[in-house]
Parts: sequence; structure tokens; C-alpha cells
Amino acid sequence: MAGDGTPGPVIVLVEPQLGENIGMAARAMLNCRLTELRLVKPRDGWPSDEATAAAAGADEVVEGARVFDTTADAVADLERVFATTARTRDMTQRILTPRQAGAEIRDFMAGARSGGQGEIKAGVLFGREAKGLKNDDLVLCDAVVMAPVNPAFSSLNLAQAVFCIGYEWLLAGFGDGEDGGGGRLAMAKETRPANKSELQSLFEHLEQELDASGFLHVKKKRPVMVRNIRNVLQRAHLTEQEVRTLRGIITSLAGNRRP
Amino acid sequence: MAGDGTPGPVIVLVEPQLGENIGMAARAMLNCRLTELRLVKPRDGWPSDEATAAAAGADEVVEGARVFDTTADAVADLERVFATTARTRDMTQRILTPRQAGAEIRDFMAGARSGGQGEIKAGVLFGREAKGLKNDDLVLCDAVVMAPVNPAFSSLNLAQAVFCIGYEWLLAGFGDGEDGGGGRLAMAKETRPANKSELQSLFEHLEQELDASGFLHVKKKRPVMVRNIRNVLQRAHLTEQEVRTLRGIITSLAGNRRP
Repeated sequence: MAGDGTPGPVIVLVEPQLGENIGMAARAMLNCRLTELRLVKPRDGWPSDEATAAAAGADEVVEGARVFDTTADAVADLERVFATTARTRDMTQRILTPRQAGAEIRDFMAGARSGGQGEIKAGVLFGREAKGLKNDDLVLCDAVVMAPVNPAFSSLNLAQAVFCIGYEWLLAGFGDGEDGGGGRLAMAKETRPANKSELQSLFEHLEQELDASGFLHVKKKRPVMVRNIRNVLQRAHLTEQEVRTLRGIITSLAGNRRP
Repeated sequence: MAGDGTPGPVIVLVEPQLGENIGMAARAMLNCRLTELRLVKPRDGWPSDEATAAAAGADEVVEGARVFDTTADAVADLERVFATTARTRDMTQRILTPRQAGAEIRDFMAGARSGGQGEIKAGVLFGREAKGLKNDDLVLCDAVVMAPVNPAFSSLNLAQAVFCIGYEWLLAGFGDGEDGGGGRLAMAKETRPANKSELQSLFEHLEQELDASGFLHVKKKRPVMVRNIRNVLQRAHLTEQEVRTLRGIITSLAGNRRP
């Protein structure tokens, strides 16, 4: 049994199109003991009779689903976010297999609990059918998960992709195939991983100062530069304390510039 | 790459009901590099437009599917047959997880080839939606495969069950020490990881500006603060390009401060 009692990751479907696919994803979640579903702008609205029918009894998942306007809102209270994707982008990112991600999510959540850091949440993002996630979604994430499937036919059905992650998370709880806790971030005492809304405030603070200093003055390049900078900070797995330190640094460096 | 060239198991769907489910199973097969599909008495006939649509491009699997009147006929030329089931029966049978079955199928087929036994085939049976396999089907099999999913909600969608077996068979082909491409850092084009001397220069640049701005003015705390800041940047696994970006940011934020 996956009986260590660790809560599972939140599943976030970004702009899912068909209610049927949402329902099948909910069924796959409950097969894997996952229950917390979030939807970002479901195209055909919510609630959905098609979703309920396709969930084949996973009513608790469908009825508990929460809807958000943006991906950033949907992940704001999560400390670790993983993005699923079928292809790499031209971005510097850590790539995990579902097996590695399943173990890492479990280690992260168990480590946080045993460290007395209270409730800590991880989530996994899934993009639209066929199109996948946008780069703006990816920069919200700490790592990218790619299933090592047939490279000549790699597009998984949405529910299949959800199942793959949930299944590996579930099996990581059995103790086989674990790597002795490697890949876990040992955390300094009396702090906790920064959540996404704290990170977002850091990003906005920095970008505001960089706009003022002229660093981002080339309009055309601004989106790419902002994304690259966010990506760097994202990758550092900042603690809440470190976010405050970085904000102090930005204020200090920029502070005396203006009268 | 799962590049040992071992052929995969035949997938046998026993009395599948909806064409759509057959198509989704075909898609899951090709995702996992499996191509040989057999159908025992498909309820709605064959070929099926619904199957073709749901296969989402896995045409070679759908078009190559063969139809049989009985399960015994469908497995007659196979040397090893595995049955998937969601529950044990009152029969003495070897039970495997999908992970164990994936490895066993691969070992069996590779062993047979290297033993010069010519073409050797394994197959996996999947029962009807909801009802599963009959005991008469099970007695044709060498072992039973049960996925260790949520016992309170264990019924997998047919395509999901097929994917689970195919995925484990596929991953069993990655040799020891191979990881299917995970655990690495995908790097944006035209850059490389920063070396330690580039990082050192970044640290010194930042600390010099922080000394000037007064952020590090408490002498006693300076060493700890410097260490914490370096630790954050170290953890981000910066590329050489990113180091230059960060130095640009520091210069820009601090730049106008001094006359």
C-alpha cells in the first residue's frame, strides 16, 4: 500500500477543452489516490455533465474541482510546481521522467512534513490537448516532466498523461525504485519553500526596478528578458527567507538611485 | 532510448465494446512503441470509424488489427500470455505488478532471441470494459497482472490499462543507469553552464555593489549573508548567458546611484 499518508500533488489542467477529457483525467486521478483538481479557463465551462459522465464514479474529484482565471492564480499557494510537456523548449530547465518526478514530489512533501514546516503543496500542470503548455506557464514551474515514450508518436491523451504522473507518484510510495531520498532539498530550519505568490511578488518587484533603471527599455525584447530572469530565480528553489533577502538586495541596490 | 530492438508484446482486447475505447487503446500502444493489436469478438464490429478517430493518428495499429472468434484462437501462436485483472479470483496464479510484468516480458523475448529460438511472442489480455476477463480466459495465461492502484477505485479505463503495461514494458528496456532522458538540464541554445570563475566574478560584483549600497554594513553578519546569497545563486545552475544577464541587472540597478 502507498500507506505513508503523504498527500498527493494537485493536478492543474490548463485550458482543457472537452469536458469528457476532464472527467477521464479525474478518473485517472482517483485511480492513483489523487483528489485535488484545478482547472484554468476550461473552454466549455464548468461544471460539465460530460466530465461527470466520463469520470465514471470519481465524483469527489469532479465536484471538488476549483476553477481559476490564470495559471499563476492556480499555482499561487503551491511551493513546487512541475510542468508536463512532450518536447523541450529553448529554455534552461531541469528535465525529469515521470518516475523521477513521482519520487521527487513524494520526497519533497514528506520532507517538508517531517521538517515541521506545516502544509506544503506540490502541483503538476498539464496543457491543452494537442497544444501543450505555453512558455509563460512553464516559467512558473520548477522542473519539466517528459515521459520517455515513443519519440515518433509522443502525444499522450490528457488522461493518460495524468495517469502516468499519478501512477509514478503512487508507486514511489511503495519504496521500490526509490533512490534513497536523493534529489531532496535539505531545508534550513525555521524557513519553508517560498510559494508561488511570494515568488510572483519578487518578480514584479525586480521588474519594476528594472523598468525604472532602463534595463528593460527595449520593448520588443522585454518579454523574453523577463521570462529568462524569472526562469533563473525559479530554478533556485528559493525559501521564503531567501525571497525576503533578494527583495532587500533589490531595494538596497536601487534604493539610493532615486532622490 | 529503448533501443534494444526487442519486439513488444501483442495486445489482445477480449470482447471490447466501444470502438472509441479500441482506438484510444491503439493510441496508447503506439505511444509505447507497441504495434500488434488483436481483437476477440468486438461488440460493434470491425473495422470501426470510431476507433480510427479515437486513435488520433495511430493508424498503423488500427489498420493492422486482427479479429478472432475466441480468446484461445487469438493467443494460439503466443509462447507467453499475461492476463490483466483488477481483482484476484479463486484460482492459483502468479500475480505480477505491471512493472514486474514489463521486465519479465522483455527478458523473456530477449532471452528467446539470444537463445536462437527464432521468433517468440508474448501477449497481454485485457477484458471487457467493466467486466474484465472470464475465468476461461485466465486459464490460458501464464500469470496475472494487477496494477497496484487505489483499492477503493481500481477500475482503469481500457486505454489506461493498456498504457500502464506498455509504459512499463517500454521503461524496462532502458538499461541500468539509463533513465529515459530525465535528470538532466535542458539548456537553451548557444549557451553552456557557467564555470566557477564566472560565478566567482558574479559573486564579487554583487557583493561589491552591496557593500557600496550599505546592504552588508553589519560587519558581524556579513559572512553569513554573503554565504546565503552565494548559495542561492549557486543553486540556480546558471548558464554563462545568465551570469551576464545578472551582471547586467546589478549594474543597471546600481548604476545610476553614483554620480
